[in-house]
Amino acid sequence: MKTKVSRRAHFNAAHRLHNPNWSDARNKEVFGLCNNPNYHGHNYDLIVSVIGEVDPETGYLMDMKILKDLIKSEVENHLDHKNLNKDVADFSTLIPTAENIAKVIYDRLRPHIDQSKEIEVVLYETPRNFVTYPVK
Amino acid sequence: MKTKVSRRAHFNAAHRLHNPNWSDARNKEVFGLCNNPNYHGHNYDLIVSVIGEVDPETGYLMDMKILKDLIKSEVENHLDHKNLNKDVADFSTLIPTAENIAKVIYDRLRPHIDQSKEIEVVLYETPRNFVTYPVK
Amino acid sequence: MKTKVSRRAHFNAAHRLHNPNWSDARNKEVFGLCNNPNYHGHNYDLIVSVIGEVDPETGYLMDMKILKDLIKSEVENHLDHKNLNKDVADFSTLIPTAENIAKVIYDRLRPHIDQSKEIEVVLYETPRNFVTYPVK
Amino acid sequence: MKTKVSRRAHFNAAHRLHNPNWSDARNKEVFGLCNNPNYHGHNYDLIVSVIGEVDPETGYLMDMKILKDLIKSEVENHLDHKNLNKDVADFSTLIPTAENIAKVIYDRLRPHIDQSKEIEVVLYETPRNFVTYPVK
Amino acid sequence: MKTKVSRRAHFNAAHRLHNPNWSDARNKEVFGLCNNPNYHGHNYDLIVSVIGEVDPETGYLMDMKILKDLIKSEVENHLDHKNLNKDVADFSTLIPTAENIAKVIYDRLRPHIDQSKEIEVVLYETPRNFVTYPVK
Amino acid sequence: MKTKVSRRAHFNAAHRLHNPNWSDARNKEVFGLCNNPNYHGHNYDLIVSVIGEVDPETGYLMDMKILKDLIKSEVENHLDHKNLNKDVADFSTLIPTAENIAKVIYDRLRPHIDQSKEIEVVLYETPRNFVTYPVK
Repeated sequence: MKTKVSRRAHFNAAHRLHNPNWSDARNKEVFGLCNNPNYHGHNYDLIVSVIGEVDPETGYLMDMKILKDLIKSEVENHLDHKNLNKDVADFSTLIPTAENIAKVIYDRLRPHIDQSKEIEVVLYETPRNFVTYPVK
Repeated sequence: MKTKVSRRAHFNAAHRLHNPNWSDARNKEVFGLCNNPNYHGHNYDLIVSVIGEVDPETGYLMDMKILKDLIKSEVENHLDHKNLNKDVADFSTLIPTAENIAKVIYDRLRPHIDQSKEIEVVLYETPRNFVTYPVK
Repeated sequence: MKTKVSRRAHFNAAHRLHNPNWSDARNKEVFGLCNNPNYHGHNYDLIVSVIGEVDPETGYLMDMKILKDLIKSEVENHLDHKNLNKDVADFSTLIPTAENIAKVIYDRLRPHIDQSKEIEVVLYETPRNFVTYPVK
Repeated sequence: MKTKVSRRAHFNAAHRLHNPNWSDARNKEVFGLCNNPNYHGHNYDLIVSVIGEVDPETGYLMDMKILKDLIKSEVENHLDHKNLNKDVADFSTLIPTAENIAKVIYDRLRPHIDQSKEIEVVLYETPRNFVTYPVK
Repeated sequence: MKTKVSRRAHFNAAHRLHNPNWSDARNKEVFGLCNNPNYHGHNYDLIVSVIGEVDPETGYLMDMKILKDLIKSEVENHLDHKNLNKDVADFSTLIPTAENIAKVIYDRLRPHIDQSKEIEVVLYETPRNFVTYPVK
Repeated sequence: MKTKVSRRAHFNAAHRLHNPNWSDARNKEVFGLCNNPNYHGHNYDLIVSVIGEVDPETGYLMDMKILKDLIKSEVENHLDHKNLNKDVADFSTLIPTAENIAKVIYDRLRPHIDQSKEIEVVLYETPRNFVTYPVK
């Protein structure tokens, strides 16, 4: 039976939901207040989980210090105190919804964690709205 | 790979656990303090999740504003500040345990969300007792 | 300089806000959904604090085990899983608003704690609505 | 003895810390990442408390529904999903630090609440950084 | 479709991460501050979930009072206010990492819950580090 | 009117409550499970607040980055992953109760913060037990 280890992290960012292929009216209709051209922002809370087998010699599935540092270098340094639309290349052609941010975080972490292990990302845009990726 | 979006909501209600087919003594033995004939109550916290594919045009799996409004109309307006046993028809012949309330919420939401998407309900009766429905 | 020690506890109860000296119409206007004649309920969260000097021999202001047991006997056993209006004599002529429940809790604890120490009660009716008594 | 009633609310906003009387270098030195010219953002959590006497007829110090609606009209509608620097006139000449936002919220609410009652504002910029205004 | 009921509990304990087959230098390199020979400690938070069918007569999957008492007798009494390395036999030859503690808790509960039901343990070592066992 | 800024931090430690001037029997009677000779431990959560005037040029009462770094150097580095009784000189003759730990933290921070400003320390030993020092 497998085990899952999870690490919580956070970053603060500004964003705006806007599809450049649409009229301003349609953007406003679909995205409402989130379409504000001057941006708004969030404290994003993040849980990264890694699923696999526990190493009997260490009792660790993965050293949480290594996972913490990886989230720091690949996610927090990349997104914290940024304007997602203007400062982060991943969102130059991708709308920074919670769904898309979660997938970007997953794609950034995936190459750095052993392929025998699965990864799961939960991203809280607010304490009341959150996203999990991927889901089987 | 699928994504899951989740929305937290809440309602306050009174209830009593009582099986009318049983004697008072057996009800008291099985349900203890929860059998108080004058009712007691809870702040129920609710997480409704929807699982499916993200629409590339909006970056949304489902507009959280629509999910929020659906929970408001189908769950909060139906259960908030109510006596579940006396004011809510779903519980006229069903004991309002957390397990059964979670299923009632699922059944009320299911017809309003696209059948290609799965739904999951987590219901907190207290911060220490909670129920998830359905589980594969 | 004084120290304050605080202990968190909780209880679940049903209640109804209703002033018997008023018409039904005025009760409904003032108390809204909280006036439901069939009651509704809450998970009340409670923080009881005691303020005074630390005993140098024990390093305790007050043994938290004693405070915990006192809250159990005087508050939880008295209010948990009860209908405040029907089962609790303190509310036979007092409307069980959060303000009044906090004062009842204070009055029940006051005789059991050394008079040289101050007491403060914080009562959460929901995570978003709470009351502190007394305030200087 | 007085009582305090408290209501929790929240809003999301973008901001930038920048003093226009200073050089870019000094702004960057003092405000660090918070000086990002493209803005970043937060989920601000807010607790507004009102201190005074309880009305014996209602058992209320102040109707929480009225306080909730007042926070909605004076604070949330004014600040939610906004860029504090560009969209909110209060910050045209005032740096939107947590300290200053708390004072602006207090000043906006003060005229709407009976002068016999005191007001206290707690503003969480993140779960780890928060401000209380005023303090005696 | 199955239902999952979950109960939150907690215990406080001291521990040290140390593999007796390794040199002190390697232990320090792998386990860092967690290798402190004088121990450090945590408030462990625990969620035990049981998955199965709801009994139509009671509306319960499992009586939460029974689950609470079982966690008390099998987990809290066994681990609370203990030094995991020195006071708990399960860790005489097993390093008390969160991964291993979660498995020990699972193994202690498994014989006491009907085999037709699945069990899941989530163990928080801190609010930011937690483990789930087992995962399919 | 003054403002208060607050910063939350945390550390994990082992401790034992024991008065060396007392018999083992009296220690066990007064301190109960907390007297375990092999130690137990906690995740201590800490809120440090600073009270004073806001600087109109920065909008800051105190730069939270400076306060965060001060808590790191004076408190976290001193107490995190330590055995308070054996590894921390402050507790060589002082029982490490929450009351005394809060006072030690206050005394360590006081020389590093401008004397025109007041300091307040809240220390959570568990989410249910916490201490505030000093209180007027």
